[in-house]
Amino acid sequence: MLPVVVVHGGAGHIPKERAEKSMEGVCSAVRAGYAVLKRGGSSMDAVVEAVTQLENNPAFNAGCGSVLNVKGEVEMDAIVMDGKTLGSGAVSAVRNIANPVCLARLVMDKTSHTCLTAEGASKFARSMGVAEVPMESLITEYARMRWRKNLAADAKPVECQMGKMGTVGAVAVDSEGNVACATSTGGMLNKMEGRVGDTPCIGSGGYADNQMGAVSTTGHGEAIMKVTLARLILFHMEQGHSPEAASDLGLAYMKSRVEALGGVVTVDPQGHWAARFSSKQMSWAAAQKDMLHYGLYGGEHFTQSIDEPL
Amino acid sequence: MLPVVVVHGGAGHIPKERAEKSMEGVCSAVRAGYAVLKRGGSSMDAVVEAVTQLENNPAFNAGCGSVLNVKGEVEMDAIVMDGKTLGSGAVSAVRNIANPVCLARLVMDKTSHTCLTAEGASKFARSMGVAEVPMESLITEYARMRWRKNLAADAKPVECQMGKMGTVGAVAVDSEGNVACATSTGGMLNKMEGRVGDTPCIGSGGYADNQMGAVSTTGHGEAIMKVTLARLILFHMEQGHSPEAASDLGLAYMKSRVEALGGVVTVDPQGHWAARFSSKQMSWAAAQKDMLHYGLYGGEHFTQSIDEPL
Repeated sequence: MLPVVVVHGGAGHIPKERAEKSMEGVCSAVRAGYAVLKRGGSSMDAVVEAVTQLENNPAFNAGCGSVLNVKGEVEMDAIVMDGKTLGSGAVSAVRNIANPVCLARLVMDKTSHTCLTAEGASKFARSMGVAEVPMESLITEYARMRWRKNLAADAKPVECQMGKMGTVGAVAVDSEGNVACATSTGGMLNKMEGRVGDTPCIGSGGYADNQMGAVSTTGHGEAIMKVTLARLILFHMEQGHSPEAASDLGLAYMKSRVEALGGVVTVDPQGHWAARFSSKQMSWAAAQKDMLHYGLYGGEHFTQSIDEPL
Repeated sequence: MLPVVVVHGGAGHIPKERAEKSMEGVCSAVRAGYAVLKRGGSSMDAVVEAVTQLENNPAFNAGCGSVLNVKGEVEMDAIVMDGKTLGSGAVSAVRNIANPVCLARLVMDKTSHTCLTAEGASKFARSMGVAEVPMESLITEYARMRWRKNLAADAKPVECQMGKMGTVGAVAVDSEGNVACATSTGGMLNKMEGRVGDTPCIGSGGYADNQMGAVSTTGHGEAIMKVTLARLILFHMEQGHSPEAASDLGLAYMKSRVEALGGVVTVDPQGHWAARFSSKQMSWAAAQKDMLHYGLYGGEHFTQSIDEPL
């Protein structure tokens, strides 16, 4: 059953013209993460590699391709968590870097802290030699178009966002049974300056514990935080539920309690995994036993050899 | 049993010369919160009033009296959560305001977001007409002395902090059975610029849900986050444990799993309450049925009429 890696490219409704790019993106990212695991890398190495690829892919709302805040700027959040140590690293509202997930990992590895924010995170990035990139390099035409459209007084950015694409994330178990998660996002469309969502918030945007499993979440951040979705799903797993059943319980609770939709990828330490969502779609992919699994709509589950082209 | 309010002034070791001020401070804050409840105010009004008083009191690490970051500056975190709606508001790494807990409440009440950070939080404060205060007005001589001492290469700020005083917080249940929590802090002694701790992180620094109860935490933030302490305690309460038993289970788990000490104040919707800690001391006070309860050392529990002077 081990190793295994599962990624998501955000819950919501993905327009037809973007669906193919989204599927290709998650499959390519999961292959990259799986290659890390196959050559003996840790689950942490694998989730960071997979999420880095998704950040670099302009089809997703993370890194290049992030949605813009109300001022038309990119501010990003990311988290990683290591199930072996319960150590985690996060950054919030960080600007001008290509890969927030890598900076989150540096926070975990190189500081005694768990989360750095805004200008403090930027200063830390500089001190670590992380390249600064111009904000323009992270902004796509698509992001700018959606920003302009949602500046109108009657705009509904939350609905619009759930109607498009979301946060990216990954979970993995390596050959030694260590679990890890990583999540990265540009956040909410036309959000206020300095808005921090669920992603860098431990237990909401992600959680990983070798005794239970790992979860990465996507959806309306403010709703995910209300129910600490990642931790909630792992409590259900602690009580004996499978990753699939626990994920469905968590998502159903979020729907009934705070009327919100979302999606998750979940693993347990034995390598059972799930990619579940209450939204119309979520692009996801998984790799295990040299097989690639992927889907986009509810109930969809394609399978093929990992080496076969899509 | 209702209404009830419980406050803490931080877990750790409180030096003798500061113990009296700390006890007076929590008793005065809990009286202020209780007065709000007695005149029909909500549990949210009560916890914000109690925590505002603690922020204004230079004896505590929140608002005026906050510890300094490595650059000798004050950056503060705060959260509120409303158990009726699961709505919450938080600010992280905010500067130049006297009462971060009030700004956290404004985030909850006046925005569609849950958390604002750093300069974005400051801009929001200005837009709400919150007065800017000079950083100097938040810095005590004691805070500056400890900052200088911990700049030395062989300093141990984490140990030093656990040895002094911590975060402040409150939980309450109003006459209608609504629960709320609030937590506020200057964070870690000599922390990096932009460091965000557990306080503004929902489920770690606090959590409130009318179906379970409310918790506010204090201790080493990075450890509290590893176990999402507030949410963990409420899971134990969901499974039938009393606030006291659930708090002890959560603190014992944090001690065994990540070797860290801390403290919490906890209520359930019926008005059962607990003030528990695994550290040497935690200043705490509670008000219920016109009686004042307070203590500082483990096992200490003084009781008197709420109107009687200390």
